[in-house]
Amino acid sequence: MTFTLEELANLTASSIQGDKDCLLKGVASLSNAGSGDVSFVGNTKYKKQLDSCEASAVILSASLAKSYAGNALVNDDPYLTFAKTVKIFHSVKTDIALAKIHPSASIAKSANIETGVSISANVVIDENVTLKAGVNIGAGSYIGENTLIESNVLLYPNVTIYSDTKIGEGTIIHSGAVIGADGFGFAPQKDKSWYKILQVGNVVIGSDVEIGASTTIDRAALGSTIIENGVKIDNQIQIGHNTKIGEHTAIAAGTLIAGSTKIGKYCQIAGAVAIAGHLNIVDNVIITGKSMVIKSIDKAGVYSSGIAADDNKKWRRNAIRFSQLDEMAKTIKHLETELINIKDNKL
Amino acid sequence: MTFTLEELANLTASSIQGDKDCLLKGVASLSNAGSGDVSFVGNTKYKKQLDSCEASAVILSASLAKSYAGNALVNDDPYLTFAKTVKIFHSVKTDIALAKIHPSASIAKSANIETGVSISANVVIDENVTLKAGVNIGAGSYIGENTLIESNVLLYPNVTIYSDTKIGEGTIIHSGAVIGADGFGFAPQKDKSWYKILQVGNVVIGSDVEIGASTTIDRAALGSTIIENGVKIDNQIQIGHNTKIGEHTAIAAGTLIAGSTKIGKYCQIAGAVAIAGHLNIVDNVIITGKSMVIKSIDKAGVYSSGIAADDNKKWRRNAIRFSQLDEMAKTIKHLETELINIKDNKL
Amino acid sequence: MTFTLEELANLTASSIQGDKDCLLKGVASLSNAGSGDVSFVGNTKYKKQLDSCEASAVILSASLAKSYAGNALVNDDPYLTFAKTVKIFHSVKTDIALAKIHPSASIAKSANIETGVSISANVVIDENVTLKAGVNIGAGSYIGENTLIESNVLLYPNVTIYSDTKIGEGTIIHSGAVIGADGFGFAPQKDKSWYKILQVGNVVIGSDVEIGASTTIDRAALGSTIIENGVKIDNQIQIGHNTKIGEHTAIAAGTLIAGSTKIGKYCQIAGAVAIAGHLNIVDNVIITGKSMVIKSIDKAGVYSSGIAADDNKKWRRNAIRFSQLDEMAKTIKHLETELINIKDNKL
Repeated sequence: MTFTLEELANLTASSIQGDKDCLLKGVASLSNAGSGDVSFVGNTKYKKQLDSCEASAVILSASLAKSYAGNALVNDDPYLTFAKTVKIFHSVKTDIALAKIHPSASIAKSANIETGVSISANVVIDENVTLKAGVNIGAGSYIGENTLIESNVLLYPNVTIYSDTKIGEGTIIHSGAVIGADGFGFAPQKDKSWYKILQVGNVVIGSDVEIGASTTIDRAALGSTIIENGVKIDNQIQIGHNTKIGEHTAIAAGTLIAGSTKIGKYCQIAGAVAIAGHLNIVDNVIITGKSMVIKSIDKAGVYSSGIAADDNKKWRRNAIRFSQLDEMAKTIKHLETELINIKDNKL
Repeated sequence: MTFTLEELANLTASSIQGDKDCLLKGVASLSNAGSGDVSFVGNTKYKKQLDSCEASAVILSASLAKSYAGNALVNDDPYLTFAKTVKIFHSVKTDIALAKIHPSASIAKSANIETGVSISANVVIDENVTLKAGVNIGAGSYIGENTLIESNVLLYPNVTIYSDTKIGEGTIIHSGAVIGADGFGFAPQKDKSWYKILQVGNVVIGSDVEIGASTTIDRAALGSTIIENGVKIDNQIQIGHNTKIGEHTAIAAGTLIAGSTKIGKYCQIAGAVAIAGHLNIVDNVIITGKSMVIKSIDKAGVYSSGIAADDNKKWRRNAIRFSQLDEMAKTIKHLETELINIKDNKL
Repeated sequence: MTFTLEELANLTASSIQGDKDCLLKGVASLSNAGSGDVSFVGNTKYKKQLDSCEASAVILSASLAKSYAGNALVNDDPYLTFAKTVKIFHSVKTDIALAKIHPSASIAKSANIETGVSISANVVIDENVTLKAGVNIGAGSYIGENTLIESNVLLYPNVTIYSDTKIGEGTIIHSGAVIGADGFGFAPQKDKSWYKILQVGNVVIGSDVEIGASTTIDRAALGSTIIENGVKIDNQIQIGHNTKIGEHTAIAAGTLIAGSTKIGKYCQIAGAVAIAGHLNIVDNVIITGKSMVIKSIDKAGVYSSGIAADDNKKWRRNAIRFSQLDEMAKTIKHLETELINIKDNKL
């Protein structure tokens, strides 16, 4: 599909710089863009690349547009405008009338499948599942009994949904994700073996959530593990039982959240973070990558831990010193006292 | 199903406080419990919530029961009693007579399937697999050739078991788990490319083990990777080739154990821990969350590393200082010497 | 299959010590080897075990062979020779003539399947997929549309390949891996909700790559995520969108690489490492386990961070001191100044 610069400007509420009739047929990055492509600069540090860019038009802020001679879509928020432009070129309207149920799918008789549901090959739908209109289940996925999936949910292939899960409208779940497996709950016994605590709760996921590949969200021991509307969860993430993630919080890959922790709305949690169980984190908290969170956070702000990689030999010397930190601190204290004594007595 | 308080007391070897005929129909957390629910307090810090709890009965220690006016199941170990009570309400007896093999399952002719085995839709069972009575294989799971699965093992949907695996009685494996994939073994060649070391060992899992969703346990290069009886392994865990995990050790989510490491019995390893390869960790070791273990541990005890997240600006200042630690230590040493000199010469 | 020591020497370009007619029927580790086994010592620290080894022959360096009385295959590179020997005993020649397509596989009519392709039970192959000769697809795997898989690629069961992926010759992908899921790209909106950036790029994987179980490699936002020839990627790894991994780089389990990072050739990245996005890491970089990499690395070498686990009480004291490091450094500075003052005035 092809658009003029003017058409894109109208569709994205942007203004035009240059040739409004310039024809655009796709989106490409600054370094790869060629004739017919629209590209974007979201960050002034890429300004240099802009000069050598071969795109037919570029999405820019007003200030960057001033120093650019070519065609531009000018917008306060170039990054969001870029996102909208990609969608304009690549969106495929789902035609519910074309929805199909593959003959190899195994669907329990008690399942309630609305019209306009697509079910791919080898999908297994267990007893009393409800799939609303526009739901699309990828090949090989499994939906456990009593699960309710609201309209327009998209499950990519090989997703596993355990029983009793609820998934809100328009949510997307990627391959390998496992929703509703047992939380890690065991009571110690006198002989030091473990007694399994049956996990009889469920997982409740809101609308417009996205869950990445190989992410696992455990069912509650009692009650529900809750993922609120608009939450974005990347790949390889683990969310423990009875956890609650507030609306529009985003969590990057490899982060682990232990059981019963409550995370507020609009938080941004980077990758490789580990958050202990039974904590409370308020709204609008940002946690940087690889942090270790072991106490509650009761004030919005940016929180961090972790130490950056360094030359191995230098690191080794410093890491050994870490194990002497308490002694070092005590020595400093002692030196301070000594110095005061010297000054008191002698100066 | 409904029980009287007296019936529950008998089933859990607890004593009764209050109305022995009180009818109970389910288990709920302190904050969600209502009429007909039994709840529990395992920790005195939840004592306050107890006062406002609407449960019909609460599982309590003797000391907490004294200060509680309502019905109670009194037991030395309220947490274990709670676990048993959940099981009383929720256990479903597996009726082997009802076991079914779904017609869409692909089962090799050489497989030995005992009576009373359940095999769900789209399961694939390869050559010479043995499944003992009461085994239950979830939809879409794959069992590689020569695998032996003992009685009453439960595999949730979409589990992958590579060839030659052995799984002991009553073990539970959650969706997305991959047992027996190749260990990461490559010999460097002169041209700096890697020569694959065929991984010709297997994985041997004991009885009453639980393995979480998306956990991976690699087959041995030679010999066996061994998970002993009663081990509990959470989600998203990686266990390298030729590793051995001792009986009743529990490992929380996201922990990585590199190859050839031996871990003792009754250990508790928290989440997000990384344990290097070729180490030996004795029995009864506790490792706290996000620790980095790079040498063997030869004494039972609690081990930790990691630094807690802090205000970002404060962290940044301290993290920079980390890279100066060795210098700081040397300066302290120098100051000490100087001070001694001053004192020796002058005081 | 059985080989004489002489045959193995010829096949591995090694020299012989002892009985060239010694019959060998398998490979075993030093501690498990018995009569008929060939074993190896790659590291002089295992020299002691060599004395009590019951193997019929051992793969050794010339220097170790001198002090060993038994039969030996002598080679400059015992580890690589061991790898080759395992392959000699265990390699199974793939007989393309025996390739089979299981009747339960769902294969789109537009797919282009060359002769000699094996497709197991319940595999789903979408529109316009090309599978070249010798490709072997494990049970339950899904191959998205327009994907091109070159000859002799092996996919273990339950692998998921999204659309438009390219996979080079001889590459191996383990179970649970997800290739080509959406990168984590969302533009913030004024109401603090997230606008999904459609991920319209793909993943391009070279030849002789190995990808571990449950590893996820995201498709590019625009353009391609690239894994070059000979790269070895362990289990539970996350590789973000638009990342590029250079030839023959090896990455151990649980490592996370954020989007748009470029990693050079011949790098060795240990497990549990987190690498931030938009970085550039040159060739021949080694990063040790659990490191946090937050800036580009422009010089070959060994890089590290992380602090080793210690006794919990000792760790707690030191970790608290970490939060005082900047103050400690300032105090040291102050003490230095004071001391200079004292010396200047008084000595």
